[in-house]
Amino acid sequence: MSLYVVGIGPGGLDGMTVEAKNVLESCHIIAGYTVYTELLKPYFPHKKYYSTPMKQEKERCGWALARAAEGEAIAVVCSGDPGIYGMAGLLCQLQAQAQQETVRAAEIIVIPGVTAASSGAARLGAPLTHDFAVISLSDLLTPLAVIQKRLRCAAMGDMVICLYNPASRKRADYLRMACDIVLEYKSPQTVCGYVRQIGREGEEVRVLSLEQLRDIQADMFTTVYIGNDSTMELGGKMVTPRGYADV
Amino acid sequence: MSLYVVGIGPGGLDGMTVEAKNVLESCHIIAGYTVYTELLKPYFPHKKYYSTPMKQEKERCGWALARAAEGEAIAVVCSGDPGIYGMAGLLCQLQAQAQQETVRAAEIIVIPGVTAASSGAARLGAPLTHDFAVISLSDLLTPLAVIQKRLRCAAMGDMVICLYNPASRKRADYLRMACDIVLEYKSPQTVCGYVRQIGREGEEVRVLSLEQLRDIQADMFTTVYIGNDSTMELGGKMVTPRGYADV
Repeated sequence: MSLYVVGIGPGGLDGMTVEAKNVLESCHIIAGYTVYTELLKPYFPHKKYYSTPMKQEKERCGWALARAAEGEAIAVVCSGDPGIYGMAGLLCQLQAQAQQETVRAAEIIVIPGVTAASSGAARLGAPLTHDFAVISLSDLLTPLAVIQKRLRCAAMGDMVICLYNPASRKRADYLRMACDIVLEYKSPQTVCGYVRQIGREGEEVRVLSLEQLRDIQADMFTTVYIGNDSTMELGGKMVTPRGYADV
Repeated sequence: MSLYVVGIGPGGLDGMTVEAKNVLESCHIIAGYTVYTELLKPYFPHKKYYSTPMKQEKERCGWALARAAEGEAIAVVCSGDPGIYGMAGLLCQLQAQAQQETVRAAEIIVIPGVTAASSGAARLGAPLTHDFAVISLSDLLTPLAVIQKRLRCAAMGDMVICLYNPASRKRADYLRMACDIVLEYKSPQTVCGYVRQIGREGEEVRVLSLEQLRDIQADMFTTVYIGNDSTMELGGKMVTPRGYADV
């Protein structure tokens, strides 16, 4: 009785691992956020799908755990990597609760995937080739003050910063807020980049300055990169050198 | 004339993306660090391999770029993701130089892979489910003072810390040094974990306290995780809750 938590990468078959593809082929039920189950249906047409909108993660994960405990071959899918802002943590927590309540709790098996930090970086060139911080600007589950402190610390440490969930309808100005914090520590000319809809229709890739980044309108499907002091633009690409050695 | 820079994940066929597998199948030459080309030979036996030991990255990448410019179907492989401490950055730099010197420079196409932060996290449970910093302890290309400052900043910001290259023969005590810096900000009971030889023979997975982590002997093939203030051990797993909401 295993519940697979599968990272599908950006969403196409090409971007998932061979292991993820094999696991999804062997399952009867695929559960996940509606946007991602819709991406999978063309590749795995003969599965049962169980999808719920955003903010119903706990209900969806609890349902999947219960089905797995009954012996169903089921996978919970997440975009990117399930361990990075995905369902792996919540499922481990729910599973630990279930284990206290019943002897028939399913085992959790995490199948890692390519996270947006990596798939977006590949489109931009090589923005992350040195130490970096990954920070989500969503304050749904994290107090804004904690997010702001982390932005300050990452900027102070001159780490490349990769921002997930840079904006939503309710948080239209959060990317600007984040840029303003980073601008306390870094030049307005700091090389930045973003990728929208990585590997999907309408993909958009842009390298720009921190000052310009402040004025773009990002959305939930945008991944943002703020360079460190040695990040440069090279032929339209965003490149952070490995360490500080000369090439 | 394209040069593919391919992330192979932990090293087996299962852990690479479908795209990475297809690209390697379509290439004639696979170039990389000896350890990784040896891992690939059983899966792609009919290729030409070009491998060099550590610290000859520049020579190897220059050679591959020149071959690609001549029209050879060639891939440079990296373990994990080529954009995270991999060859993507160096290749973009060398390519920009080549473009200034010749009209026949190859284009760089980065095929992302599952980085050790993700593949190790999957083995431990869900240590990275919230904001995190990725820091390499190798001072080969980065001054030690910069590494130490980043460790301080990441600890101050209560980000989960994922350490790459935590030790080598010449840097046997660097993990202890890193733990001592983090201990200035965090409890000795902070939940930590490490994975050695992820997905390979002799894989070792352990959850332990920061105090205990200080005393382990890591090596180049170990990935280390230092939890944030809410990271917990749950049934032998290392789990960082998503945000601060109750489950």
